[in-house]
Amino acid sequence: MQPVAIHETVLYCEDLPDAERFYRDVIGLRLVSSVEERSRAFRVSATQVLLIFLASITRLGHHIAPAHGATGEGHIAFTIEAGSYDTWKAHLARAGVDIEKEVGWEPLDGLVRGRSIYIRDPGRNSVEFIEGAVWPA
Amino acid sequence: MQPVAIHETVLYCEDLPDAERFYRDVIGLRLVSSVEERSRAFRVSATQVLLIFLASITRLGHHIAPAHGATGEGHIAFTIEAGSYDTWKAHLARAGVDIEKEVGWEPLDGLVRGRSIYIRDPGRNSVEFIEGAVWPA
Repeated sequence: MQPVAIHETVLYCEDLPDAERFYRDVIGLRLVSSVEERSRAFRVSATQVLLIFLASITRLGHHIAPAHGATGEGHIAFTIEAGSYDTWKAHLARAGVDIEKEVGWEPLDGLVRGRSIYIRDPGRNSVEFIEGAVWPA
Repeated sequence: MQPVAIHETVLYCEDLPDAERFYRDVIGLRLVSSVEERSRAFRVSATQVLLIFLASITRLGHHIAPAHGATGEGHIAFTIEAGSYDTWKAHLARAGVDIEKEVGWEPLDGLVRGRSIYIRDPGRNSVEFIEGAVWPA
């Protein structure tokens, strides 16, 4: 048995309005649910959502879902369209977002790999944009 | 501009061999990369990987990728095939995994929603299996 896909990917930010602005206006995701002091849900694709939670609240538990909540710098990587790497760099520059690092991935076991742009979200999570393959199929 | 998909979803566990056994043998994911004391990468679908990191190591930084590393209980939700809910429950029972909670999601703004099974991974991350829709399209 195995799951079909990852439906919810989670990051934590202590300032939800800031996180909302970032993921909506800079990353370009569509907000589909908002629970004032607890969470924001963004639709990424037909099968995926990104959830941003306030860990200090989710750690206290919830009447429906089990408690969770992490602190520190998390990580997420988005796939970007082939050929959009430079357009993303220009877009991030226009948005005033510092690029922390760029990586061109060396070929690995015969796999030609792509490249990545790394930035930080308002919660200091490491946000990566990947053009091309990085991991073995 | 917007990304196409989420490529990498990340959780942290302090015992990587334990996490490897869990995600491979219980969740049924295929291990595609292993860096001894740092990470495990599991292929979930053609477009998605789940990365498990040892936060105490990734926080120290890396010669290629920026530092990250969170502590506490994270969360992930997998999509399971329609009709496989009871089979997953039986599978988890056979694997000796406690079900922390089951949730039948109430309809929301005209959206008929599905149901969820919640368990914990060896790092105490909250792992959810979703059959059907939960979030607005």
